Order: sequence, then C-alpha cells, then structure tokens
Amino acid sequence: MADNIYSVSEIVGASSVGLDDAIRGAVDRASKTLHNLDWFEVTGIRGRIEGDRRAHFQVTLKVGFRLDEPAQ
Amino acid sequence: MADNIYSVSEIVGASSVGLDDAIRGAVDRASKTLHNLDWFEVTGIRGRIEGDRRAHFQVTLKVGFRLDEPAQ
Amino acid sequence: MADNIYSVSEIVGASSVGLDDAIRGAVDRASKTLHNLDWFEVTGIRGRIEGDRRAHFQVTLKVGFRLDEPAQ
Amino acid sequence: MADNIYSVSEIVGASSVGLDDAIRGAVDRASKTLHNLDWFEVTGIRGRIEGDRRAHFQVTLKVGFRLDEPAQ
Amino acid sequence: MADNIYSVSEIVGASSVGLDDAIRGAVDRASKTLHNLDWFEVTGIRGRIEGDRRAHFQVTLKVGFRLDEPAQ
Amino acid sequence: MADNIYSVSEIVGASSVGLDDAIRGAVDRASKTLHNLDWFEVTGIRGRIEGDRRAHFQVTLKVGFRLDEPAQ
Amino acid sequence: MADNIYSVSEIVGASSVGLDDAIRGAVDRASKTLHNLDWFEVTGIRGRIEGDRRAHFQVTLKVGFRLDEPAQ
Amino acid sequence: MADNIYSVSEIVGASSVGLDDAIRGAVDRASKTLHNLDWFEVTGIRGRIEGDRRAHFQVTLKVGFRLDEPAQ
Amino acid sequence: MADNIYSVSEIVGASSVGLDDAIRGAVDRASKTLHNLDWFEVTGIRGRIEGDRRAHFQVTLKVGFRLDEPAQ
Amino acid sequence: MADNIYSVSEIVGASSVGLDDAIRGAVDRASKTLHNLDWFEVTGIRGRIEGDRRAHFQVTLKVGFRLDEPAQ
Amino acid sequence: MADNIYSVSEIVGASSVGLDDAIRGAVDRASKTLHNLDWFEVTGIRGRIEGDRRAHFQVTLKVGFRLDEPAQ
Amino acid sequence: MADNIYSVSEIVGASSVGLDDAIRGAVDRASKTLHNLDWFEVTGIRGRIEGDRRAHFQVTLKVGFRLDEPAQ
Repeated sequence: MADNIYSVSEIVGASSVGLDDAIRGAVDRASKTLHNLDWFEVTGIRGRIEGDRRAHFQVTLKVGFRLDEPAQ
Repeated sequence: MADNIYSVSEIVGASSVGLDDAIRGAVDRASKTLHNLDWFEVTGIRGRIEGDRRAHFQVTLKVGFRLDEPAQ
Repeated sequence: MADNIYSVSEIVGASSVGLDDAIRGAVDRASKTLHNLDWFEVTGIRGRIEGDRRAHFQVTLKVGFRLDEPAQ
Repeated sequence: MADNIYSVSEIVGASSVGLDDAIRGAVDRASKTLHNLDWFEVTGIRGRIEGDRRAHFQVTLKVGFRLDEPAQ
Repeated sequence: MADNIYSVSEIVGASSVGLDDAIRGAVDRASKTLHNLDWFEVTGIRGRIEGDRRAHFQVTLKVGFRLDEPAQ
Repeated sequence: MADNIYSVSEIVGASSVGLDDAIRGAVDRASKTLHNLDWFEVTGIRGRIEGDRRAHFQVTLKVGFRLDEPAQ
Repeated sequence: MADNIYSVSEIVGASSVGLDDAIRGAVDRASKTLHNLDWFEVTGIRGRIEGDRRAHFQVTLKVGFRLDEPAQ
Repeated sequence: MADNIYSVSEIVGASSVGLDDAIRGAVDRASKTLHNLDWFEVTGIRGRIEGDRRAHFQVTLKVGFRLDEPAQ
Repeated sequence: MADNIYSVSEIVGASSVGLDDAIRGAVDRASKTLHNLDWFEVTGIRGRIEGDRRAHFQVTLKVGFRLDEPAQ
Repeated sequence: MADNIYSVSEIVGASSVGLDDAIRGAVDRASKTLHNLDWFEVTGIRGRIEGDRRAHFQVTLKVGFRLDEPAQ
Repeated sequence: MADNIYSVSEIVGASSVGLDDAIRGAVDRASKTLHNLDWFEVTGIRGRIEGDRRAHFQVTLKVGFRLDEPAQ
Repeated sequence: MADNIYSVSEIVGASSVGLDDAIRGAVDRASKTLHNLDWFEVTGIRGRIEGDRRAHFQVTLKVGFRLDEPAQ
C-alpha cells in the first residue's frame, strides 16, 4: 500500500430520474477530465421544483483522484 | 432576475419504496398547500425498521417557495 | 408508551445498485446479529469508483435497537 | 405502518424553573394550534440572565406533526 | 421578564445591493404577515451570479416572534 | 496517570420524568453490561409526544468505558 | 436599544443534582468575577460516571456580558 | 430545465471596504478564468487586523459553474 | 516567521448601520483592552428586531491576538 | 470489488508521547478484539494536563471492520 | 469527586516541528498565566506555508482550568 | 497589506510515518503544480489499516494560494 496523494474536486450532478442517477452522472462527467478517480463523498442533496411538483435532484459530491508525480 | 423573497418550510416525506419516492412524496404533499415551490434541500435521512428488517425511509426536506407581496 | 432504552450501532452498507439497496443491505445484515431493530439514521454517503467510472455506493447508518432488561 | 408525511415547526419554550419545564411549555403551547404532534428535537439551549445571576432557560425545539391529506 | 414562547420562521431575503439590504428586506417582508418579531439569526449566505459577474445576494434568516396566548 | 484506552458506546435513555432522569437511566442500564464506565457525552435530545401534549424525553449519550487488556 | 458590545466567556458548571443545577452554578460562579451578565448558550453536556453508575453532570456554557466603555 | 452538471471552486475574496465588496471581488476574479458562473455560497468570514484596529475582510466562497460537455 | 502563540477572545459587536460596522466596532472595542490583534473570524450573525421591522445587527467574532512572553 | 458490509466501533487511544502514538495504540488495541480492520477516522483530539503543563493526548477514532456473513 | 467549576480559554500554539510540539507549546504557554489546567481539546489545525513548501503548524486548543472560589 | 484573492484546493496527503509527514507530503506535492502557497487547514484525518494493525495516515488539507491577476 503506497502512500499515494489524492486531489479532491467538488462537482454537482443533476437528474430528474433520482439520486443514484445524479451521482452516477457526476462521476461519469468527472471521469472525462480527471483520471484515476478513486472515491466520492456526498456533501449535499438539493433540488429544483418545477411546476410546483416536479423534483430535479442535485447531488453535490467530493471526488478524490490519485495524483501522479509531475514530470521532473 | 428580480430580488424575490422566499419562505422555507420543513417537511418529512416517507416511503417504503426508497429515497427518491420519499422526496417526491414530500414535494407533492407540500404543493397542495404551498405555492410557487422553487427548491428543496435534504437535511436528514432516517427511517423506521419493522419486523427487524423492513426499512421505511423518512427524508427531511427544507422546501423554499417564493412569497408574493401581500395585498396592501 | 414505556420508557424503553435503546442501543445504537454504526454500520456501513454497500451496493453497486444504489443508495436504497445499500441501506436495505445494511439493515438486513444488522438484523442477523441484533434484535428489536427500531430505527436508522444515515450519517454519511460515500463510494468507491472503479475503472474511473463505476460507482459503488457506501452508506453509513446508525441503527437503534431496543434493549431488553438483562436477566437478574 | 403507513407512510405518513410530517411537517416540522420550530418553537422556543422558556421557563425560569428549568429545562424540562421549558420543553413541556413549548410542547403544550404548540398543541394549541397544531394537531397530531408526534415528536420533538432540541436544537438549542440558551437563556437570559437577570440581575447578573438569575437564569431564564430558553429551549429551541423542532416539533413534528402528522399531516392529514388536504380535502380534495 | 415573563417566560414568553416564540415561534421561528425561516425566510430568504435577496438583494443586488448587498447583505445588509437582503437582511432588512427579509425582516421587512416578514413583518407584513408576522407580529411581535423579536430576533433573527443568519443561517446561510448564498447568491446567484448573472452574466458571469453580477452577484445577487441571498441571505437565509431564522426569524423569532413572540406568540400570544391563543384565545380560550 | 496511565495511558488508558477507552471504548465508546452509544445509548438512548428515555424518561417521562425529565432529562436528568433519562440520562441517569441510560447510565444505569449501560452499567449492567459494561464495566469501568468513566464518562458520558450527550449527543442529542429528542422526544415523543403523546396525546398531542405529553412529552417523553429521549437523550442520546456516548458512554466511555476503560478497556482492560485482553488476556494473553 | 443602544448598540452594546458584549464579551463572551466559556465556563463549565458541574452538579451531581442535575442539568439545571449545573447551569445555575456556572452562572452564579461567573457573576462573581464578571458583571452585566446578559445571556448564556449551552454548547455541550457531558459528565463523569463514578462507581460505574453515578452521573456527575457537566454543562459547558458560553456566557455573554455587556462591556462598559473603558475609562479614557 | 436540463440536468446540467456543475463544478465547484473555492475562492477567498478580500477587501478593506467591506463584506459585499469582498464577495464581488471574488466573483469578479473567478469570472476571469471560469465560465458559466451560476451561484456562490459563503462558507467563511474572516479577516486580518492591522495596527490593532483596521479590519481587512476575507470572505471564502464556493462558486458553482456549469460544465459544458467536453469535446468528443 | 517565528512560532508565535495567540490567544483567542470572543466578542459581539452591534450596529444598526450594518454588518461591516458591527465588525469594525467589535474590533475597535477589542483594541482598547487587548494588544497585538492579528485576525478575526465571524462565528455568528444575529440581530434584534425593534417595532417589528428595524434590524439591529449583532456579529459574533473570535479575535486572535499575539501573546508576548510573560516577564520571567 | 465485492459489496462488503462494515461495522464501526469508536475507541479512544491515549499517549503521553504524541498523536501518532495515540492513534497507533488505539488501532493496536482494537485489533485484539476485532478482525478485518479496514480504516479509521479521527473524530476528536483532546487531552489531560498534569501538573499544569504535561499533556496526555487522547485521540477518538472510529474504526471500520469488515463483517463476515454470520454462520447460518 | 467535588462539583468543580472550570473556565475555558482558547489558545493557538505554533511550531515548525509538528503538531505535538504545537500542542505542547500552547499548553506550556497557558500554564504561565493560568493555574489548575485540567484538560484541552483541539478545535482546529491550520498552518502557514513559507517559500511554497515549508509548513508551520498552528493548532487551536480550548484549555480548561479549575476555578477556585473567589475570596469573599 | 494588499487585498489579495486566494484560491483553495483540497488535497489528501498520506504517510505511514505519521500525521506531520502526511501534511508535509501534501504541501510538498501541491507546491509542484500550484504557486504562491500561503496557508493550509486540516479538514479531516483518516487512515487505512493493513494486516489488522498497521495504520496508514491520510490527512485532508485545504491549501490556499494567492492568485495573480490574469494577463489582460
């Protein structure tokens, strides 16, 4: 178990389907620009309400990814 | 973007189906007595356990709704 | 309504299906060693990310169960 | 166990007798305008000090009450 | 010093002028429907950003108001 | 002052008499199965309301007890 | 209502009688060295356990007192 | 209302004028390197004191901005 | 950069003008009895409401000041 | 990556050497009665002071350990 | 076990050596002006970075000390 | 004292040696890609346990660095 160093990014996923879908969407989007994603932590669950009744879920995640050593 | 004023109500939705269903039920119930619902924030997730195993989800939401100006 | 005393255990459920499944799995597992389970409270939602994209949900629960009086 | 929906109100009870009395006073007052009260949670304990020494207890409670379905 | 009971409402004031103005607007609006307002507590400061640069301040307040005894 | 190690258990005491009684009941019950109890910390105060007015106090405690060295 | 300035001190009251007594003892002791005491806020409730069963309550308070202008 | 995904950056604005100015400065600076800024949340208010009396305000903000889809 | 030690005092500034003025007033008052003031942190924003509408701002600050070595 | 379930125990390690030593001591002690220890989280750092100057470190940890399936 | 009353002071220790050293330095400094020091609690760990790389640790402690009865 | 603006990054340092080493490693790694590092704040201390007993420390830091004005 090497002593890796991680960086943490915060991202908000959204979905009208549900919480799981919002989380998966955020992780999927993060994977397009960040590499070596390792873990996430949910830090907030909010949403928008449309037409007084329709809930759009917004889940805020911290996403940790392993840093490679920068080229010397 | 007008400088609207919002009021916030706290409500607990419940469901034996799951978290999404509990949230939608709470928003739906809120829409019957409050108008201009705009956003929600989940402030707690709890539940009851029945027969030692069956989980009933209870999600506490803050629900924000836009206030109209009171009639003069 | 008797003045029951409860003990609280902390458990982490995991699922690649979703949050509801992780919660149900944790309650189900708790029921195998604890009795008179009464309520739960979600205290954290985290997860592992595999292959940069696949989310494994981990939900931390406090589980309350009613204590019987110990035999004299 | 039906999937009831609850609303939550915040109220501050006060007493120069003590904490228990402040909580009971707040619940009692809430029962005069709200129905189907089910639970409370203490979210803050403060007080005023009179004449540099006499403590007046103020306990902030969230009070949950079961919502009936609104008449159609 | 009588042992008054207070109720607490949550309200979000908004202003493009600044924080003080958002707080005063929220208190002013609350005074139109609630009486015997006594104190407030700021529980959150957020805002919207328009055109990438213009900040609209949103301040969430808890507002406490003294309850009269309900008529018998 | 030896460098003792403590374990922490969470327990919920209940009483219709008041907060002090709920705390003492929880400590008393803990003492029946745990030994070398040393300290407690209140982490939550809640309650049930019966008949819209009667408060049942529930106090959540963390209880610390000194661990003996396990037999070799 | 002048714009007074307050200083805040933290003090821990203790009592084997109960929470109210611990709070009153702390306020009483504070009044011996501080003047113009105005309010308190409970920030923690802990205790010691003696002989595995007897609870000694310890209540941590922040105490606010009005500052006079220092002599010029 | 599309299910947009947001990224969140943390930034500290500073001003010797006041809180509003520190917030506006931070948003303004963020807009120079980030696009589609949508909201902010104040997570801390601190400051430096110079010459024992002059306050320099420092406001920590989380700033949310909408992510475009990365080019395929 | 020497390894200075700081002490922290808590103070509540008040103003009917606004938040900045309440903070400055508190720092100014602190400077009359404490020396080597270095930083502050806002830990709470509250206020009194007069005549149902007029807000008096109260800002709680922690103020850090550098300790000199006590004379031997 | 199987969907393991974890249980969480809270333990307080102590050391007059330092924080690292207190953490290691707590993990070491936990390993004598719990198996499959996987992670820890520090939830509090406190200490006793002896003779007005000598610090004894006390670190509170949550320790997670993987649960095996109970024998059928 | 008498029902002692404690006062709590907040102090920030600093060290370029490490966390243990910063804590010990703060306790040592506190002992020069306060007596009957009994416990401490770490409430924050921060630091300054010099030359982009060298960390100076700053640990904020609450320090509790037993109050003697003031002379009559 | 100019009114500088800072950006904040979150990073997790790891070490099998101890907490100080994990913090220094994180700051050192951050200095390879960020400039004008000014301060850090520890927001979490966790770790992995290997072979039931060997602790690997993981310290989460927020790191603040001064932003230069972007080239016009």
